[in-house]
Amino acid sequence: MLDLPFLPFCVLLGGLGFVCVIFVSAWCQHWRGGFALDGSAQMFNWHPVLMVTGMVVLYGAAALVYRLPPAWSGPKLPWKVLHSALALAAFGLAVLGLAAVFRFHNDHGTPNMYSLHSWLGLATVLLFSCQWLAGFSAFLLPWAPAWLRALYKPVHVFFGSTILMLSVASCVSGINEKLFFSLKNGTTEYKRLPTEAVFANTLGLLILLFGVLVLGALARPSWKRPDADSPDSCQ
Amino acid sequence: MLDLPFLPFCVLLGGLGFVCVIFVSAWCQHWRGGFALDGSAQMFNWHPVLMVTGMVVLYGAAALVYRLPPAWSGPKLPWKVLHSALALAAFGLAVLGLAAVFRFHNDHGTPNMYSLHSWLGLATVLLFSCQWLAGFSAFLLPWAPAWLRALYKPVHVFFGSTILMLSVASCVSGINEKLFFSLKNGTTEYKRLPTEAVFANTLGLLILLFGVLVLGALARPSWKRPDADSPDSCQ
Repeated sequence: MLDLPFLPFCVLLGGLGFVCVIFVSAWCQHWRGGFALDGSAQMFNWHPVLMVTGMVVLYGAAALVYRLPPAWSGPKLPWKVLHSALALAAFGLAVLGLAAVFRFHNDHGTPNMYSLHSWLGLATVLLFSCQWLAGFSAFLLPWAPAWLRALYKPVHVFFGSTILMLSVASCVSGINEKLFFSLKNGTTEYKRLPTEAVFANTLGLLILLFGVLVLGALARPSWKRPDADSPDSCQ
Repeated sequence: MLDLPFLPFCVLLGGLGFVCVIFVSAWCQHWRGGFALDGSAQMFNWHPVLMVTGMVVLYGAAALVYRLPPAWSGPKLPWKVLHSALALAAFGLAVLGLAAVFRFHNDHGTPNMYSLHSWLGLATVLLFSCQWLAGFSAFLLPWAPAWLRALYKPVHVFFGSTILMLSVASCVSGINEKLFFSLKNGTTEYKRLPTEAVFANTLGLLILLFGVLVLGALARPSWKRPDADSPDSCQ
């Protein structure tokens, strides 16, 4: 494949992640009534913004830390701390995003956890919490022996990509669901494709593009730390 | 990672794919009124069955052809033909699945192509058609020079995984959307989680599991054809 350099790609990807956050915020601010912390529909609006920012954009940034050329030489610990901190920040935003939707449902007497979107979304966040705890225990705490780190590393890498894929699928199903909920009585129906629908559909495609580009960057052999597959890289 | 052998994994994956097809067929037969070819809701029911069978299960089988150990030695042409034929069958089912939903919409005066699910689904099938044509032209027709095959191969591999990921995201958003459409007036609402909702949500998770396992198998280094990254493997 053409030898694309990582850093310009990374700048473009950062720009795309920023556009995703702007788009989801603009959707909620301009068409869905803005933000509040009072259990109303405006409280729900934190849900898409926090999930996209946490589980897609920040998560993607955390996943790509080891692809930065400065991370290829010198001590690995600072990069592990950065990877872990970004992932923890992503997880924190996801928990706040879940709190927003549970509070909204509870205040409106709507049941929680019935749609496929909710099952998938919660499973993704739970998987992420296990991934973070296992990664922290194996790679940042000093007790884990080298053989355990070597054994666990490919599992951590596999679930890292899997969780991002599940996050993106959750976002797409969530945006689709929210548009069916919102664009009916008193508004232009979703099926008449009003501006809001075009805007939010585009947001869904941008999130997918971001996720695919992160997964592609993770899989690209020439962007991996040169010693990534050797046992000592797990130390 | 533990050295899991490919063939037992493949049998389990085949079983899971079969379960996905059985589940989506049972959902449409038992809860959605069965199948017909008359433009009615029973015609729509072909859509989920054909998309899951084509774009997920058959597509996954096509993607994994080169991971079969017998494909690692001897002439590559029969395996290329098998890969291409399975992909073409998957594409054929996808086209029939699209025809079913367009006919249903047209017969009911419902607009086509407004939801995020429809945008994503059609984009996935269009991408798949480009992927198949480019793969056929580059790897099966004799005119393509070796340097072009070598250049295109990683692109084909990347889009192969990407299209499966997009298919799975399309299925999840489609099942979620269909349940919101169907489980309301005259039925137990989706939010009360009737048996149909549990069944179809489970189908969504099984499809996700199938997709993740195929993507994991494709990424696993020890299951790749030993010469997969050498230029002569592109001949």
